[in-house]
Amino acid sequence: MKKNHRYCVIMCGGIGSRFWPYSRTSKPKQFIDFMGTGRSLLQMSYDRVMPLVPKENILVLTNAMYVDLVQQQLPDLAPEQILAEPARRNTAPCIAWAAWRIGAMDPEASMIVTPSDHLISGEALFADNVRRGFDFVEGNDALLTLGISPTRPETGYGYIQIGEEVEPGLNKVKTFTEKPDLELAKVFVQSGEFFWNAGIFMWTVASIKKAFRTYVPDIADKFDSGYDVLGTPAEREFIDREFPACPSISIDYAVMEKASNVYVETVSFGWNDLGTWSALYDNSPRNNDGNVTQQCTVLAYNSHGNIFAVRDEKLVVVDGLEDYIVADAGDVLLICPKSREQSIKQMVNDAKNHFGDKYL
Amino acid sequence: MKKNHRYCVIMCGGIGSRFWPYSRTSKPKQFIDFMGTGRSLLQMSYDRVMPLVPKENILVLTNAMYVDLVQQQLPDLAPEQILAEPARRNTAPCIAWAAWRIGAMDPEASMIVTPSDHLISGEALFADNVRRGFDFVEGNDALLTLGISPTRPETGYGYIQIGEEVEPGLNKVKTFTEKPDLELAKVFVQSGEFFWNAGIFMWTVASIKKAFRTYVPDIADKFDSGYDVLGTPAEREFIDREFPACPSISIDYAVMEKASNVYVETVSFGWNDLGTWSALYDNSPRNNDGNVTQQCTVLAYNSHGNIFAVRDEKLVVVDGLEDYIVADAGDVLLICPKSREQSIKQMVNDAKNHFGDKYL
Repeated sequence: MKKNHRYCVIMCGGIGSRFWPYSRTSKPKQFIDFMGTGRSLLQMSYDRVMPLVPKENILVLTNAMYVDLVQQQLPDLAPEQILAEPARRNTAPCIAWAAWRIGAMDPEASMIVTPSDHLISGEALFADNVRRGFDFVEGNDALLTLGISPTRPETGYGYIQIGEEVEPGLNKVKTFTEKPDLELAKVFVQSGEFFWNAGIFMWTVASIKKAFRTYVPDIADKFDSGYDVLGTPAEREFIDREFPACPSISIDYAVMEKASNVYVETVSFGWNDLGTWSALYDNSPRNNDGNVTQQCTVLAYNSHGNIFAVRDEKLVVVDGLEDYIVADAGDVLLICPKSREQSIKQMVNDAKNHFGDKYL
Repeated sequence: MKKNHRYCVIMCGGIGSRFWPYSRTSKPKQFIDFMGTGRSLLQMSYDRVMPLVPKENILVLTNAMYVDLVQQQLPDLAPEQILAEPARRNTAPCIAWAAWRIGAMDPEASMIVTPSDHLISGEALFADNVRRGFDFVEGNDALLTLGISPTRPETGYGYIQIGEEVEPGLNKVKTFTEKPDLELAKVFVQSGEFFWNAGIFMWTVASIKKAFRTYVPDIADKFDSGYDVLGTPAEREFIDREFPACPSISIDYAVMEKASNVYVETVSFGWNDLGTWSALYDNSPRNNDGNVTQQCTVLAYNSHGNIFAVRDEKLVVVDGLEDYIVADAGDVLLICPKSREQSIKQMVNDAKNHFGDKYL
């Protein structure tokens, strides 16, 4: 049987602080069953790529502290499929590790890199798009990103402006943009030239290694020096020594915004980064009273537009609350208007300043 | 040494549903350390009467399900000092049991009957008032109640109207009143004739037994028939058989409102029945931001006038909440405006209708 050279790398190391305290350092966003389906966001990400690559070709990149959680939620993974980062160094170093590791085993490999904490609907469309992306990067020296057709003038996302079309639905990238304000976002959407940047990348190992060598040579050198140990029992010691010495830098900044062979496949499956409580509210089924409940039972009186994310099947009885976030996990309870969710980051900082790491 | 014939009966069988879910059936109001002093309301009640009667003369009347909690909180009590009611039958039957039991051991006894879930300040004044009350009932065939000098036109309490003065500060009772509306409460307070009914009673065993025999003869007959077993190991079986057959009736309705020898000692120690969340709020020290916290730590932003009663030293982070009750105990969380606290009873009923006894 022909060897399958397609791989999937699921990035799973985030701490999800925007959903604090429902998402805690000890069990961040990607490990939570936000949709009430019985599967966490990570498990849904895994399920989504299962039809696309052989299951032994799936790697999960995560922080060392989450290895147990990953093993628990994805029991089919062999230990060597979980790459445990000894330190948090943003996306470029961990993607490099994955690329060099895969390359050491299979120099002909192509790969998709995907976050584990986003919501995607339209699995069949997703699968078709990814297969087409694999075909494209396997035939071209291309760094491919997926651009989602925007359905609203979202100010919380970065956008990709498309350039020259190389095939229908496949374009050169003209620019990556920062998050726009509302006026600009409206212009973006109307233009038909701007797509949401979902942070999903595809390339061959050869192409991404070449890009690292060109734009981030110190990272490339570091992993080149580990060629003999990658995929062997000695890899752990190598990574524990070298990984923390990598610069903390995103793949977007390190590579994608610099390289000239960057392409975008414009896709139209449903996508949401679930980056905010409001996004979660908007993407969750509502009760008759317009409230969203996560893992709890709610008796609501004169209360609408709230999201109750309360662990452990607790009963929440609420009167006279409109458009609030009520989040509870163990020893922390948060009550905050949805309109003030941007301040949660500050609250987490305040909690840290007052109490250290106890409540993170 | 002369035998001390003074006794104290602490009533401790309530379920405190108005503070649900902070007060739960499994640990009601009187067992909670509301004041953050390290002593529950029951323990504070016990401490208050300790100087007034020998400690072996203190009896605690409680529901059978709370015997363990009472023993835990008052470890000095001997088992025979805890009278465990096999059923809830309001105050008259349990007071009768206590009177007949005490009388069987000590026919010359006098006694004070006091709730365990009220707040009293001014312990020295309380002690003076109670000693004077003992002196009065020991010299007169009197059913004495304590009337608190009202400090505001409270609509949540019953009032006692005083009649003829028999000694300074000791009057015949003219009438017991229902809870007045605000206008009437103002008139009451201005008149100087109306005092809060604290539900604290004093009498000799002889006087109260006589009153029961006159006004509730079936209860008197029942306990008369147990004369030989009260205070013996056979009492348990007698009570388990006879007590549930008693009518469920309050001492006020059964005796105090009917008898002609009812007196009131007007007192001025601080008293609050802690019958509502607002009463608890008003009687608790406030943080700088005007919030009251019970057993929890609060980081408050743009939030004032709230009461946070959250068990287990939880961290509560709150933004944009004014004048709410936030109560959490284990598997129930309640969020409700203070102004709507009257509806909590309905919420408890709804919870019961939906989920049975699980969350009570």
